[in-house]
Amino acid sequence: MKRPVITLLSDFGLADHYVACMKGVILGICPQAEMVDISHSITPFSIPEAAYTLAQAWQCFPKGTTHLAVVDPGVGTARRAIVAELAGHRFVAPDNGLLSMVLSGHPRAKVREITASHYFRQPVSQTFHGRDIFAPVAAHLASGVAPAKLGAVIDDAVQGSFTKRTQSGPGRWIGCVLKIDTFGNVISNLDWETFHGIGTRPFKLRVGRRTISLFCKTYEGAPAGRIFALRGSSGYVEVSLNQSDASVVLGVVPGSAVHLTLDA
Amino acid sequence: MKRPVITLLSDFGLADHYVACMKGVILGICPQAEMVDISHSITPFSIPEAAYTLAQAWQCFPKGTTHLAVVDPGVGTARRAIVAELAGHRFVAPDNGLLSMVLSGHPRAKVREITASHYFRQPVSQTFHGRDIFAPVAAHLASGVAPAKLGAVIDDAVQGSFTKRTQSGPGRWIGCVLKIDTFGNVISNLDWETFHGIGTRPFKLRVGRRTISLFCKTYEGAPAGRIFALRGSSGYVEVSLNQSDASVVLGVVPGSAVHLTLDA
Amino acid sequence: MKRPVITLLSDFGLADHYVACMKGVILGICPQAEMVDISHSITPFSIPEAAYTLAQAWQCFPKGTTHLAVVDPGVGTARRAIVAELAGHRFVAPDNGLLSMVLSGHPRAKVREITASHYFRQPVSQTFHGRDIFAPVAAHLASGVAPAKLGAVIDDAVQGSFTKRTQSGPGRWIGCVLKIDTFGNVISNLDWETFHGIGTRPFKLRVGRRTISLFCKTYEGAPAGRIFALRGSSGYVEVSLNQSDASVVLGVVPGSAVHLTLDA
Repeated sequence: MKRPVITLLSDFGLADHYVACMKGVILGICPQAEMVDISHSITPFSIPEAAYTLAQAWQCFPKGTTHLAVVDPGVGTARRAIVAELAGHRFVAPDNGLLSMVLSGHPRAKVREITASHYFRQPVSQTFHGRDIFAPVAAHLASGVAPAKLGAVIDDAVQGSFTKRTQSGPGRWIGCVLKIDTFGNVISNLDWETFHGIGTRPFKLRVGRRTISLFCKTYEGAPAGRIFALRGSSGYVEVSLNQSDASVVLGVVPGSAVHLTLDA
Repeated sequence: MKRPVITLLSDFGLADHYVACMKGVILGICPQAEMVDISHSITPFSIPEAAYTLAQAWQCFPKGTTHLAVVDPGVGTARRAIVAELAGHRFVAPDNGLLSMVLSGHPRAKVREITASHYFRQPVSQTFHGRDIFAPVAAHLASGVAPAKLGAVIDDAVQGSFTKRTQSGPGRWIGCVLKIDTFGNVISNLDWETFHGIGTRPFKLRVGRRTISLFCKTYEGAPAGRIFALRGSSGYVEVSLNQSDASVVLGVVPGSAVHLTLDA
Repeated sequence: MKRPVITLLSDFGLADHYVACMKGVILGICPQAEMVDISHSITPFSIPEAAYTLAQAWQCFPKGTTHLAVVDPGVGTARRAIVAELAGHRFVAPDNGLLSMVLSGHPRAKVREITASHYFRQPVSQTFHGRDIFAPVAAHLASGVAPAKLGAVIDDAVQGSFTKRTQSGPGRWIGCVLKIDTFGNVISNLDWETFHGIGTRPFKLRVGRRTISLFCKTYEGAPAGRIFALRGSSGYVEVSLNQSDASVVLGVVPGSAVHLTLDA
């Protein structure tokens, strides 16, 4: 017997009943669903943090997984609901940039606007589309409903500005902080594939109150009290402080600028 | 194959091992159980908040679901354990008012005192009936044990005072705060069906340090810095402060009194 | 059909995607796995708290369960990865003392160093062995791979000092605080089996700013405002304050000393 996997991501928190309502609705439609929380502690309304978190997690899941992501400041307005198909996975989300880090790596992804309201929970409220639209649509997908039944293909899904790095001169780039993780590690949007040179060449990374020029391979490899850069498991350049909180020392938050100078 | 659904609600938090212990006990008795957390972040010992949260969530789940709710300041004392049946759902909880919001809408619910100790985990500790009594009973119910095997029907289950509004004079009522949500919105026990007049008629709502006389239809509809009443998605009158925390300004917690004066 | 149970314990928190990545990897290898979180809110890098929490939870789970525990300040260094077998359960963890409370009660447990890298997720990162080593190994175990295939038996697994009590004189012992639970109860490493005399004989328990000489059977049995000792559901002596936070009044943290004087 198949147990279709559905992941859930939101900014609803775990204290209130909202996540449970989505799960109850899913189980009513797709009783065999295996539901896995990615996170419900996204900073409220923070689409970059949600986009990054989803982009980090989805590839760990098996093909066939349906990913349900609801960070939705525009709930009740005219923003679209979308479903994306890529690499054997399906994604259901509001069309506000939440899927843009997933989509930027997959130009051949198929994206549809969700318009087939007979798959929604009725009546659809003005305030809780997670329960009334996104959860039931994800459950129907997991139950075998083809994405093509949900609506027409679109080619103008919202793309978030946080997906880009700017070259500001020879050997100079400007990026941004995507997320502060639980340990206080500062995760930039400088991808290791492009910027792996910081592992082998002299560099300066200006982040908040500090300029970092030390690279270490592991958290434990760093001297006590020194801030250093490393290749995060995320695939991005991270800034870290051994067993302490780098983000507090740097004074940065998601969205803060990151300035890199890297010798040729 | 059937996967019986069991929801879990408690004030145990997610940091400790208590919730996992209940789940381990459940899986030992009912290996096919599909367990869904409603919340484990209920304010410790707050029966009104637990009762409200359960009442908001259970109807999203499919018929046949067993709901396990443990907020239990009286653990180890003579308070009863009960099981309730209504609308195709079963509820297992201490008899301290936790089920009273669920029960108040279903006068024909069947409530039993749980006395069949051969369904308990032995030995029963003085301090953790969630693991030793409530979890195993919920798992046995989910496995097919009939509620009638658990104990005799009772008609005097504890009713929480927080389910009631008291009329204190012409156009005057006293209610209470049920919950502060993640955003700091103050949810009262004044149901919109009875008190929708505050949407159209002059009113005064005294809550903690403030008296509110402004009604707004949406969060965005309110002037900055003004506290206002609105119809919450919960179906109750809420007090809110646009993009800020109303509960801190008011200085209230679950259980705090709410005084309404409403013009005829 | 079998649903092998895998529990998860870490200090990753629930805000980030790390726990979800481990679960996705597990489902890719063992699609039928039933995954239960023990806790992901262990104080970062706190091996005693993790060891205690795991030791409290595992026995509630059915035989055949695989327990995956990752609190791993030494990730990327030469510390070993181990698998332990005892009482029909399997444990996968870094070899840093995390399993020492589980192992101390089971001298005949079989412990192996995990060296069979073909069971790892490739490439293995320097920073996230939870995803790349521990989760896939746990999933393969749950799928039926024999522990013997993972590596050779060892007899020198790291033992944590927090597992021991010292006798400092006649009727005098020194132990330590293992954990502060969500309610502020202070859990010592004085096991009830050895120290049950505090339930029946005069005693003095010096913990932080106070010396406790009152024993109560239940939380509710204590006078308001009085700090008291009780037998915790953990099987250890706990110090508690009825409906309030004992740890704040005592001023203690995990690792703080506990001095017991017990009349003969």
